[in-house]
Amino acid sequence: MKDFPLLDRREVLKAGLRFSTATLGMGAAGAFGQSVPFAPPDSTKVLGPPPSALGQRSPFETPQKFLRPGTAAAGASFTPLEILHGIITPADLHFERHHAGIPVIDPGSFELMIHGLVDRPMKFTLNDLKRFPATSKICFIECSGNGRQAASLPDGLPEDITPGQLDGLFSVSEWTGVKLSTLLDEVGASRRATWMLAEGQDAAVMGRSIPMRKVLDDAMVVYAQNGEAIRPEQGYPLRLLLPGWEGNANVKWLRRLEISDAPFMMRDETSKYTDAMADGRMRMFTFEMAPKSLITNLSYPYVMQRKGFHEIRGIAWSGGGKIARVDISLDGGRNWARAALQEPVLDKCATCFRYGFDWQGEERIIMSRATDEQCNTQLGYVDNEANRGPGTSYHNSAIRPWKIHADGHITFAMKEVAA
Amino acid sequence: MKDFPLLDRREVLKAGLRFSTATLGMGAAGAFGQSVPFAPPDSTKVLGPPPSALGQRSPFETPQKFLRPGTAAAGASFTPLEILHGIITPADLHFERHHAGIPVIDPGSFELMIHGLVDRPMKFTLNDLKRFPATSKICFIECSGNGRQAASLPDGLPEDITPGQLDGLFSVSEWTGVKLSTLLDEVGASRRATWMLAEGQDAAVMGRSIPMRKVLDDAMVVYAQNGEAIRPEQGYPLRLLLPGWEGNANVKWLRRLEISDAPFMMRDETSKYTDAMADGRMRMFTFEMAPKSLITNLSYPYVMQRKGFHEIRGIAWSGGGKIARVDISLDGGRNWARAALQEPVLDKCATCFRYGFDWQGEERIIMSRATDEQCNTQLGYVDNEANRGPGTSYHNSAIRPWKIHADGHITFAMKEVAA
Repeated sequence: MKDFPLLDRREVLKAGLRFSTATLGMGAAGAFGQSVPFAPPDSTKVLGPPPSALGQRSPFETPQKFLRPGTAAAGASFTPLEILHGIITPADLHFERHHAGIPVIDPGSFELMIHGLVDRPMKFTLNDLKRFPATSKICFIECSGNGRQAASLPDGLPEDITPGQLDGLFSVSEWTGVKLSTLLDEVGASRRATWMLAEGQDAAVMGRSIPMRKVLDDAMVVYAQNGEAIRPEQGYPLRLLLPGWEGNANVKWLRRLEISDAPFMMRDETSKYTDAMADGRMRMFTFEMAPKSLITNLSYPYVMQRKGFHEIRGIAWSGGGKIARVDISLDGGRNWARAALQEPVLDKCATCFRYGFDWQGEERIIMSRATDEQCNTQLGYVDNEANRGPGTSYHNSAIRPWKIHADGHITFAMKEVAA
Repeated sequence: MKDFPLLDRREVLKAGLRFSTATLGMGAAGAFGQSVPFAPPDSTKVLGPPPSALGQRSPFETPQKFLRPGTAAAGASFTPLEILHGIITPADLHFERHHAGIPVIDPGSFELMIHGLVDRPMKFTLNDLKRFPATSKICFIECSGNGRQAASLPDGLPEDITPGQLDGLFSVSEWTGVKLSTLLDEVGASRRATWMLAEGQDAAVMGRSIPMRKVLDDAMVVYAQNGEAIRPEQGYPLRLLLPGWEGNANVKWLRRLEISDAPFMMRDETSKYTDAMADGRMRMFTFEMAPKSLITNLSYPYVMQRKGFHEIRGIAWSGGGKIARVDISLDGGRNWARAALQEPVLDKCATCFRYGFDWQGEERIIMSRATDEQCNTQLGYVDNEANRGPGTSYHNSAIRPWKIHADGHITFAMKEVAA
């Protein structure tokens, strides 16, 4: 819990209220030495602090990303999807997945180099890039390993896992930058070019080969996130954005683009991010994230407090385009009914869905199933395993079931469905 | 400038780099005792810190809202629109305008009362409200006094004012909550009801009368902003949202809604927020914000560094619905050409526009002009003054002109246009 200036003590005293000093300012010390948020009994009798140059969260709200104990520089932190609303992820709650920690980069000396099969190899400063025609896109980024705990890993399928702990390597931002097609016009990319290397400036020198069809379609280099400069954890000052494609290919701390006529077979696309299939073959360059949905309300650790109306809420997305529909099952997948979708429904972005029902204390397995505008549909556990093979846990987009127990508590029910 | 943990010193030492202690951690002390951001010369040689539970801005980025010196509890802070990109405003940069400061409210004891012309007066806790069907909307909130410095106030028209200092009482968020029509069904609002009082829990007990036609159209009570709990400065834990209507009517720290068959004539709608017309009459309840646009790039204090391609960028919005078009003039309003609009174009929301042109060092007055889907168009200074009268500075939506000087510096050019 963060220390937080709650009230100007003088204002409280001016208002004629008397509290012990311990309850003012940082709040009273709690049982474990943490500060406890404090609010006056009647806020209309206390003149509040004036407008600020930079706002802060309420001391009663301390959202955090989930970090497994001992998370290393090659690790991850998970967006707490179950406490979020709508589609935008606050920048400081955007998931993180780094291969060698977060580099500190001075934007003043930053340069992006573009070379290889081009007429005019060039370097661009950040200010150079900001002078090009700008474009913005609200879209998701999802780690290719997101939700791998929903696969049949040796340690089994968990029951007491939150939506964020399970699938929180998923976040949505409004990104702003320059279309790569614009920059490739500038350097005169060869018509023979079929692949592009994207290389990061972190200690892993993360490198990925990107097909030119994506580069020329909707790829961007982005310097802004949710209005402001991109965050250090997201690649400050510049990252590659490949809408709908697996997170690691959206190379952060981008410093170099090399245009070529073959893929580069980098360490991070052979040691990782390749899917082993059931028949022993390996599937490489599996970039596009499949249609997926996740119930974020009426899922663990929520407890149904009473009988009556409840709303199932969640998010659905697809790397294949817009979400066309989301269906809900209240009986473990036998019957399905259509959920309401919240506008705006955007390309390669989270779409909120909602479905109300009357709960009378019965045991239920609830599920959501996303279908995108290409008519691709999220698969169940069994079909997903058969399709992708037991040797891989990347791109685990299987339907996520939750079990509402008669006493109102809820557990992740993949075990029941996988059995 | 904020202190910021830049590098883990042990990681730097492990990487075999030697810097003086003063340049590590908080950075070297600058000339004025402020910490100076530091980045290693080659970030690929330094293992960075691991993923975080809560991200932080780059130490090289310290955005702030504009505060006039001596801003009191009844004051404002302005969103720095000129440094933002896209449509979403980061929550801590959302503009503030308070009538008696920011109250601290405990969400656990919070209640919203709905009473008056209803069958069943009720109180709702925050958890009660979260159980109702939820809805989200990405839209703007603009203070009715936004941009009043662009009117002919006694202190004259400024030239060295930034877009944010001028019109920064404008921000965009994704808001989530409950439609008021849903809650009014719950309490059984009378069919005779024509007005609703919305009352805040701040020390000003801010009160506004809202016509039922808006209440039943798209009004909401909202508990979330950009995904997370609404910020204290924006009404934590609950505010009224009236998409497209003047900011103060979107009552913050909302505690009471009273349904009635007449307006309540509250202090804050008679002493303020009423427009004096040229003929001496007063125009009350001027809720809807007019179509407006603002160039945020190629405006003061930006300086054109070289001849050649430049992109005029800005935002346009209207309380009347979606933006239908934005036109650009490069010659003080004689000729106009259509700007490109960035998707998504949303109802009562900012829409980004862009227009590229070749600058060869000539003096120019550039302008943008918004038209909404109702065919209402932003007026020029003279028409706007004639329409609203010199006795008011609320709802100042006149076209904002900027003058590019031959040496590349840019000034706010309302004086030239008003002359």
